[in-house]
Amino acid sequence: MIQIEIITIGDELLIGQVADTNSVWMAQELNKAGFDVCYKTTVGDNEPDILGAFENALSRAPVVLVTGGIGPTKDDITKKTLCKFFDTRLVFDETTLETVREVIRGYNKTLNELTKSQAFIPENCTVIQNKMGTAPITWFEKDGKILVSMPGVPYEMKWVMSNEIIPRLQTVFRSHGSIRHRTFWVKNYSESQLADRLETFENELPEHIKLAYLPTSGLIRLRLTGKNAGEDFLDKTMEWQVGKLLDLLSVDIVSVEDADLEIILDKLLKEKGLTLSLAESCTGGKLAALFTAIPGCSAYFKGGVVSYSNDAKATLLGVDCRDIEKYGAVSRAVVEQMVSGSQKIFGSDCAIAVSGVAGPDGGTPDKPVGTVWIAVSLHNRLLSQHFLFSKSRESNILRACNNGIRMLLEMIREA
Amino acid sequence: MIQIEIITIGDELLIGQVADTNSVWMAQELNKAGFDVCYKTTVGDNEPDILGAFENALSRAPVVLVTGGIGPTKDDITKKTLCKFFDTRLVFDETTLETVREVIRGYNKTLNELTKSQAFIPENCTVIQNKMGTAPITWFEKDGKILVSMPGVPYEMKWVMSNEIIPRLQTVFRSHGSIRHRTFWVKNYSESQLADRLETFENELPEHIKLAYLPTSGLIRLRLTGKNAGEDFLDKTMEWQVGKLLDLLSVDIVSVEDADLEIILDKLLKEKGLTLSLAESCTGGKLAALFTAIPGCSAYFKGGVVSYSNDAKATLLGVDCRDIEKYGAVSRAVVEQMVSGSQKIFGSDCAIAVSGVAGPDGGTPDKPVGTVWIAVSLHNRLLSQHFLFSKSRESNILRACNNGIRMLLEMIREA
Repeated sequence: MIQIEIITIGDELLIGQVADTNSVWMAQELNKAGFDVCYKTTVGDNEPDILGAFENALSRAPVVLVTGGIGPTKDDITKKTLCKFFDTRLVFDETTLETVREVIRGYNKTLNELTKSQAFIPENCTVIQNKMGTAPITWFEKDGKILVSMPGVPYEMKWVMSNEIIPRLQTVFRSHGSIRHRTFWVKNYSESQLADRLETFENELPEHIKLAYLPTSGLIRLRLTGKNAGEDFLDKTMEWQVGKLLDLLSVDIVSVEDADLEIILDKLLKEKGLTLSLAESCTGGKLAALFTAIPGCSAYFKGGVVSYSNDAKATLLGVDCRDIEKYGAVSRAVVEQMVSGSQKIFGSDCAIAVSGVAGPDGGTPDKPVGTVWIAVSLHNRLLSQHFLFSKSRESNILRACNNGIRMLLEMIREA
Repeated sequence: MIQIEIITIGDELLIGQVADTNSVWMAQELNKAGFDVCYKTTVGDNEPDILGAFENALSRAPVVLVTGGIGPTKDDITKKTLCKFFDTRLVFDETTLETVREVIRGYNKTLNELTKSQAFIPENCTVIQNKMGTAPITWFEKDGKILVSMPGVPYEMKWVMSNEIIPRLQTVFRSHGSIRHRTFWVKNYSESQLADRLETFENELPEHIKLAYLPTSGLIRLRLTGKNAGEDFLDKTMEWQVGKLLDLLSVDIVSVEDADLEIILDKLLKEKGLTLSLAESCTGGKLAALFTAIPGCSAYFKGGVVSYSNDAKATLLGVDCRDIEKYGAVSRAVVEQMVSGSQKIFGSDCAIAVSGVAGPDGGTPDKPVGTVWIAVSLHNRLLSQHFLFSKSRESNILRACNNGIRMLLEMIREA
């Protein structure tokens, strides 16, 4: 398995201005292509840190992929620093200028001096022309190791990774091993209970397959990873272990898809042509925000009511005031009326409703902080469940969201 | 300025399964507290890489903050590796066990052997009890440098950073000279326009005062930081520069409070005894989620409608179907009826309504992606505004939220 390090360069990545989503995408694609990302480093736009990061990364890994810091403005210094590191100088490249001209034409812009300077490239490297932007990609080889510098602009980086860098790396490293990941969403266990349950399974895993527990709110994400073995052997042994795991955990496995639960439900709803609505009390709009963050959710998402007050539960969702009085807002009776009310007012096929005590205040001996009732419905089917989560408001909200989505996912699948 | 490095540990961060949002949040908070994040490293759950990352980070920075890899399961090896690095061993700690017991009790779970093992801690460190989870936080000092290991679970990390680690770091580094921050929320400018406007001001700043542009969606957060000077001199010169800045930007300064806008509005609503409701289309529940994330918001927050479909806008909020037909869902007419409708059905004193084209699809030549209408109301006053944000769905949602909150904040202040 070829080990790859990623270095992301940019002050904006260090002050919390921008979340590094580039390296997430790169890792996914590199994994699929049979490479292993073993280390990531983020440094600011300053020479000593960039030089140090190059030095350290190349001392550990045979391939180093670098993003960012190659724009035309003054604060971008990666190209200059590459020259220093590889002991070379910038030279003017006619082919690169031609590409830059073409790109600029595509954007209906004119070429200024600053942009023209993009055609200066380090002398002893291979240039990969950037069809999506003005910053050329530079590929260096030294002492049998590879370092590639590419833009940090996500769509430029994605284009060059998919079309140029990954194919070239695959050619260079044709003879090396593969990697396989399988992921499982598991319910009904805490992390340590699940580890107990899987102790023997984990001890009996072959050397080349590893099990990992990934932190999530309210459910557990398990991952099996196989690597450093021949393709056929890898596939066979992975299938065998996946089978064992499915047998062991059986109905507690919610999904074998490697995606967030709302994405899994999004796909299922689109596939089945079902519409969705929500009625949220303690999750306060978070559940709706999860779905509306997904492009294209308007295909199925009708809307939701955030009924924070009891009045709103009664007026908007048609919950019986006497039931709120009798059982309290956090109760089976109320959450079931919320889910039906939501389905009715939005005219949706299915719905999720949540009512709970998120905390930190508002708990009673009877209904402590973390008490949550969730109901889901699909046409005329309805299911509700009681939970006792944690003392943390943020965690209670996320756990309620994940479990609500999980319950509806299961209801639709079983229908 | 004290330099801090962040190390995030976990295989899931290297295969692209989980985006590292922890370090983004940490960088923001550390910045606010007067620290500088200068380097980030991500390594997998393996000993040599973790040891190497500790070694390198401590060779560069006086403080290293480490997240992840301290769960009770086998794949988490940070604690063992810390022992190796600091040449110590695990010892059983009764106080930690008591905390773990309490946390487990809070979750209504029982203590098993695996969880009990969390009470084993490295001998020569300071333990910070984790009130949100079972993994204790460990604080090491060596050769005048500090390394702190904390959980990677976001809400646990956030709790311990805010309540323990940042305050302790501030105490340790108190003597490094005083520091003063003043923050300003600015509207009506892009970052480069504001930089143009403030060019002379910035050039005339004394050596010991710096200006920083902090990342925010839809508004700009400016920060003046004074340090490395005597207290009195610092206070006087800061006041002078703050005065200059207030004069320069005048009515474009929305707030001088250093808090997220929803927190500023939360305080104002409580102070004035006003209640709030929402009507969201393109922000899809995000606005509601921002308020309900704040403990105690039930004092003023009545609820909201996420009216993703046109039907919902008409049925629930009473928007006239003919206006939706005539002007489109993203229009002044519709958003103004949404805000009035919300105020009416929830019986609230004020309301915010948003309708827009979040993207990536759904744009037209007339109303391209990024077109957003926002309306706010307070009793019988109503104000609406048109915006053209960006091509990014995520950014459009956040900008709409911030501007909606900003508009209501200003309306209440001016009332």
